[in-house]
Amino acid sequence: MRWEAYQESQREPLLVSFLYSSILNHDSLESSLAFLLANKLSSAAMISTQVQSLILNALHKDRSIGRAIRADIMAVRDRDPACTCLPDVFLYFKGFHALQTYRVAHAIWKTDNKQVLAHYLQSQMSQTFQIDIHPNATLGNGIMLDHGTGIVIGETAHLGHNCSILHHVTLGGSGKKGVDRHPKVGNGVLLGAGTSVLGNVKIGDGCQVGAGGLVITDLPPHSVAVGVPVKIIGSFVDVTEQP
Amino acid sequence: MRWEAYQESQREPLLVSFLYSSILNHDSLESSLAFLLANKLSSAAMISTQVQSLILNALHKDRSIGRAIRADIMAVRDRDPACTCLPDVFLYFKGFHALQTYRVAHAIWKTDNKQVLAHYLQSQMSQTFQIDIHPNATLGNGIMLDHGTGIVIGETAHLGHNCSILHHVTLGGSGKKGVDRHPKVGNGVLLGAGTSVLGNVKIGDGCQVGAGGLVITDLPPHSVAVGVPVKIIGSFVDVTEQP
Amino acid sequence: MRWEAYQESQREPLLVSFLYSSILNHDSLESSLAFLLANKLSSAAMISTQVQSLILNALHKDRSIGRAIRADIMAVRDRDPACTCLPDVFLYFKGFHALQTYRVAHAIWKTDNKQVLAHYLQSQMSQTFQIDIHPNATLGNGIMLDHGTGIVIGETAHLGHNCSILHHVTLGGSGKKGVDRHPKVGNGVLLGAGTSVLGNVKIGDGCQVGAGGLVITDLPPHSVAVGVPVKIIGSFVDVTEQP
Repeated sequence: MRWEAYQESQREPLLVSFLYSSILNHDSLESSLAFLLANKLSSAAMISTQVQSLILNALHKDRSIGRAIRADIMAVRDRDPACTCLPDVFLYFKGFHALQTYRVAHAIWKTDNKQVLAHYLQSQMSQTFQIDIHPNATLGNGIMLDHGTGIVIGETAHLGHNCSILHHVTLGGSGKKGVDRHPKVGNGVLLGAGTSVLGNVKIGDGCQVGAGGLVITDLPPHSVAVGVPVKIIGSFVDVTEQP
Repeated sequence: MRWEAYQESQREPLLVSFLYSSILNHDSLESSLAFLLANKLSSAAMISTQVQSLILNALHKDRSIGRAIRADIMAVRDRDPACTCLPDVFLYFKGFHALQTYRVAHAIWKTDNKQVLAHYLQSQMSQTFQIDIHPNATLGNGIMLDHGTGIVIGETAHLGHNCSILHHVTLGGSGKKGVDRHPKVGNGVLLGAGTSVLGNVKIGDGCQVGAGGLVITDLPPHSVAVGVPVKIIGSFVDVTEQP
Repeated sequence: MRWEAYQESQREPLLVSFLYSSILNHDSLESSLAFLLANKLSSAAMISTQVQSLILNALHKDRSIGRAIRADIMAVRDRDPACTCLPDVFLYFKGFHALQTYRVAHAIWKTDNKQVLAHYLQSQMSQTFQIDIHPNATLGNGIMLDHGTGIVIGETAHLGHNCSILHHVTLGGSGKKGVDRHPKVGNGVLLGAGTSVLGNVKIGDGCQVGAGGLVITDLPPHSVAVGVPVKIIGSFVDVTEQP
């Protein structure tokens, strides 16, 4: 990615200082990401250097986040037809930025038990990227949040590896207090734009839900489902990918 | 709420100056809110101290807004299962921030007859919180705008007391100029994520509309409705709550 | 518009410096727009004066953008019942701001062949206005993006003249790489809130799609269609307008 960023900086002099300060100047992806997110998540409440060291600490403490970040970048490059190079994902995709903010907030919530700080990051994430992921939700690796605006993922939701989530998707609760009230989504699932999945329902591995779908009952693995509420219209097994 | 904020400030040193300047340093909820919103709604057009005094003046002139604010905070605490303490609502819920921005803009529009200023606040609200409420709409007390991203409430819409509105809900117009063209929603209504209510239709007290519903005809009180367009699938009377 | 802005500045002293610096102080609409957008699209990566000269250069190079801008302003004034004066459209409508950001990014992509810069503008547009239009999409003149939050328009999409697009509308791809994979929308089309149009489908001139509709097959001209997926429920010919 450094090499691609260097090539871009050669092509576009206006952005050279941005590319240098965001990518070329850092010795690790973690350091680069902390710098980038800190500029986006800072506020009158917490200046960017504070946010930066908060993020860096979380990334250094839990090395598994670094693996998740790399899998997420490759997920966008592989699945988004409009994506042409790695620095673009890293610098410009707000779905990627929100997802990494969640990963840091999740670590702060779970490992450091600092719910107040995690809520601060969630709040800034929602205001900056319009993506609202509860720090206590559990998300796998290799996830693409495409376009991103309006995605909401609730506190007890679970999302497997290699899922693709389009904009306006809701993994919402049943409204009951203090219980496991959000959806459980398997691996390799694709949820189309505007899909709502509500309550503690299970979506099996490899399912695909069409845009605008409403899911309020379980879906068996590899279902293709559309409608409000969704009906299963077929099944899908992609032999070329191993989710 | 001051006491809870004080406890949080003891737990989380990184946020202590934020909690002090936003809550502990103020002698009234109104003063605290004006400070918080001013930081979020300021721009090159109007610096935060100007916005702050604008908001404070409106809150002092019309004391009924203060009652509405308190009812709104309690509404989130009572109805959002992920909400654990009052300062979180006040500091972090952008649905709450947008709602209070509307309340101020509404007062400026109605009482002071300053439509240009009210439009400025509406524009900043939409850009900052992605929630677009026309200053001339009428909203009751005890309202929760959950998650918030994408909510649109039009000029001649009416929303009763104790309603819960999820993200992506539209109370939209019929497209006709100069007439009463937006929905009239009763008390204690729940509109699920992505619901669109279009035209001058009436939704009765205590109705519940499922996620992604499209409402283009009147709904009698306590209906439960789902679909595009919605069909009534049952009725709902909550004996534990008095909306 | 200068005259209306002057009148507003007389009515509202708090906004007088904003109105002066944004409108009254400029000798052309292009200069005024470049100033306004630069303030909204700047970031740590590119300061507002850089963005301003970038926009001004693009507007001076391609004079047809100026005509499109004027048609877009009139479109909002004519079609939005809540719009009362021209400066309001220009200063406050984020759908208008995002659309003009796209027009500049499109020129930079096509004429100057600077994809990296165009992607920067797209990314800032999505973060600031929550409207994500690929710089390589082709959009006609006289377009209104009403409310705007959540609109997504993909790389190979085409949108004709005089279309009205409500919030949460998606012109999305089929997911295939490297092919013409987005919708082709004719002139004078109205797409209601939350409509998703997916894949390389054609929507004929003068069609109207109801809120929340899912379009995955072609629609003949002047169709009125609703549902998930949409069904044609009638036809519409507006004899008073010439789209």
